[in-house]
Amino acid sequence: MSGGALARVAVDDEGKDAVTAESFRAAVLAAGLLVPGEVDGVYGRSARYEAVADAVERWSFALGDDEGAEPLRFPPVLARAAFERTGYLASFPHLMGSVHSFDGDDAAHAALTEAAESGRAWATGLAPTELMLCSSACHALYPTCTGTLPPEGRRFRVTSWCFRHEPSTELTRMQAFRMTEHVYVGDPEGADASRRRWLERGFEALLALGLPARPEAANDPFFGRTGRFLARTQRDEELKVEIVVPVHDDRPPVAVASSNLHRDHFGVTFAITSADGEPAHSTCFGFGVDRLVLALLRHHGLDAADWPTAVRDRLWP
Amino acid sequence: MSGGALARVAVDDEGKDAVTAESFRAAVLAAGLLVPGEVDGVYGRSARYEAVADAVERWSFALGDDEGAEPLRFPPVLARAAFERTGYLASFPHLMGSVHSFDGDDAAHAALTEAAESGRAWATGLAPTELMLCSSACHALYPTCTGTLPPEGRRFRVTSWCFRHEPSTELTRMQAFRMTEHVYVGDPEGADASRRRWLERGFEALLALGLPARPEAANDPFFGRTGRFLARTQRDEELKVEIVVPVHDDRPPVAVASSNLHRDHFGVTFAITSADGEPAHSTCFGFGVDRLVLALLRHHGLDAADWPTAVRDRLWP
Repeated sequence: MSGGALARVAVDDEGKDAVTAESFRAAVLAAGLLVPGEVDGVYGRSARYEAVADAVERWSFALGDDEGAEPLRFPPVLARAAFERTGYLASFPHLMGSVHSFDGDDAAHAALTEAAESGRAWATGLAPTELMLCSSACHALYPTCTGTLPPEGRRFRVTSWCFRHEPSTELTRMQAFRMTEHVYVGDPEGADASRRRWLERGFEALLALGLPARPEAANDPFFGRTGRFLARTQRDEELKVEIVVPVHDDRPPVAVASSNLHRDHFGVTFAITSADGEPAHSTCFGFGVDRLVLALLRHHGLDAADWPTAVRDRLWP
Repeated sequence: MSGGALARVAVDDEGKDAVTAESFRAAVLAAGLLVPGEVDGVYGRSARYEAVADAVERWSFALGDDEGAEPLRFPPVLARAAFERTGYLASFPHLMGSVHSFDGDDAAHAALTEAAESGRAWATGLAPTELMLCSSACHALYPTCTGTLPPEGRRFRVTSWCFRHEPSTELTRMQAFRMTEHVYVGDPEGADASRRRWLERGFEALLALGLPARPEAANDPFFGRTGRFLARTQRDEELKVEIVVPVHDDRPPVAVASSNLHRDHFGVTFAITSADGEPAHSTCFGFGVDRLVLALLRHHGLDAADWPTAVRDRLWP
């Protein structure tokens, strides 16, 4: 299927060819929107793709303009000490990216390059650095909140490149992707109110982009046997709600936004205290920037110039 | 020294207090432009900092508008297979970031979390993934150029978050930073012409931003004993020229741009052939986006609203 054919299908696909994960990938790559590399889930981005990604990022930040939330961009790496306190290691070890480097001498270096030149494994002996790849945009935030919060709590908007080690040819499952999040840290009532407000606001904003979005109770992809128990608990206690959009006709819909109630998890581990002296509660509402770009391309066509005016007006106000 | 005091010093610092690496850092952090974390050289970015960084990135890309170069943004991770061919492992092993993850079972996971909870080293046994942190924005580009080039060669503008493992409290020496590059791949004459043009263009553009820039023959920070020889050769053959700007009065000036002539290094290793059938030559001219932001803050003051109109007009045309 050519990019042109898909562009038409994507604009109005009722009764037309199915858009599968494979055909969507082929069309997006053929249109030059993304440039594949040697590893699945890692793509170069064209100017046309980036114009939409930048707009989505600005749009998702601007949704919180009335809250006066502090905006912050974090780099793609995160302090290992912070990562260790997030609980990620227990829950998602298979998705993490740990940054290792070389700290040896000339002789060790000679052995390293000799191994690499012989095609042998050369990286196993590298030393872990003090850094991890960023697991979630808000993980870099909590260490900066340690201490006592004001009575109204604190609100942030954060953005970062994030990493998940899950090589896949599905475009919507990238290993390196951008995420924006609206975060509240404060007391339990404030966290609950923020969560409800953002679920409603995020859902309506996604509908206004012309996306067939719907909320869905969800759970994180916890690792292993214990993980199955954690996933069930998370669902039973309704701690995670995703907003999903169908992208591939042959796959389940894709989460483009996610609401998480952390209770006092980050408050306890990062020593953040609400004004009443209790461990702070927190909640975040995140948008997957790259997934949103792909959902928009799927539903409105591969050329953003042809998108409905109502959608363009929201993304480029 | 307060941010206000430095802002004044930075606007007109003749005969005033010296701006040291330490006082500059203190002022930038006190002004809330960057948010320090638990690891030196890794900072959260405020909206005010990002407004300048975005402008610098756009400005550096727009300098190549007349060339019609293909624009691409790469993610912060790079295929290990591509990294292995760049020569980085031989030259800069101490600066690399190798991405490792967990690929074990439930029992291995229990041992991993037990080690972490006991405060023992837990990351040494992780498995290297197929990814590295991006060593240079152009490194992700060359694998996409494999094959035969058109007679005029190819031109690109690329941008990426890059990583260098060199923890430092100097703000101008970040571990995670953004880089934009103008790249030519083609024949030796084209590479030489592109290199000369970009050195002149980049130098003049930096002067026009009101920065006391000057070009300087340079060498890369090659590792070890062999590295000292490589550095001397690089200087003798004039393969690297940096454009430097003084930022800290107590430190050498900082490279904010760098011109590199690779000869046929990437052509050979990535099987890129020029139209005449020879291994392609390449050259890149890179801007350090974060270093440029810091140089602008140092020379024009911490509040971009107060910068000279001529500078603002170039950054926000």
